Amino acid sequence: MNWLDEIRWTPEGLIPVVAQQTGSGRVVMFAWMNRESLALTVQDGYAVYWSRSRNRLWRKGEESGHRQKVISIQLDCDEDVILLEIEQEGGIACHTGRESCFYRQLIDGQWQAVEPVLKHPDEIYK
Amino acid sequence: MNWLDEIRWTPEGLIPVVAQQTGSGRVVMFAWMNRESLALTVQDGYAVYWSRSRNRLWRKGEESGHRQKVISIQLDCDEDVILLEIEQEGGIACHTGRESCFYRQLIDGQWQAVEPVLKHPDEIYK
Repeated sequence: MNWLDEIRWTPEGLIPVVAQQTGSGRVVMFAWMNRESLALTVQDGYAVYWSRSRNRLWRKGEESGHRQKVISIQLDCDEDVILLEIEQEGGIACHTGRESCFYRQLIDGQWQAVEPVLKHPDEIYK
Repeated sequence: MNWLDEIRWTPEGLIPVVAQQTGSGRVVMFAWMNRESLALTVQDGYAVYWSRSRNRLWRKGEESGHRQKVISIQLDCDEDVILLEIEQEGGIACHTGRESCFYRQLIDGQWQAVEPVLKHPDEIYK
């Protein structure tokens, strides 16, 4: 059986993907893939997601240059979530210019930004 | 504004949650929470999820004893994914008896189990 057929896709044909920086283990992003984007990810060796908001393939870094080189691809016990071990080019995964999209932490009942902006978005998306 | 109101819940009132082991950074699980379960997670200091299959609150470890002590709670840039830093009791998050649910890796076009079973499920769920 094809490895793509072993995945339990959502009714919309998607699977959630957690991107984790190799080495540090920092979880940097959460996104979705469809069958085509996952196949392209394996083929290219760089993360290709499915943008639900734009309804099209999204080659991560296509605008920012912050591509994600794939180190390994892991599947969970229910075959419905993927964990992507990546090498984040530029060290920035988030569109806000931070290393990780998970830059806010719940402290004293408030979401507080605890990660610095490494590069201003205006510098990233020219 | 209440911190729970800042979250962008799905139409079903849920948010995806990535659970990550503190220290090692191993991503051990992916699950969902609703408003009540997230509030209980903060209140109790242990992860409480919303089981979509059983349609009820799921206090992680209620059967297995493998509770997840909450270290920190992080929110992503779109306010629609949570990253939970946890201390996994028993060192086993997966119902298969492994440390992590992400125990399969894509190798040579096949999903191959690369993590050992630490405890047989029959021993966990008596």
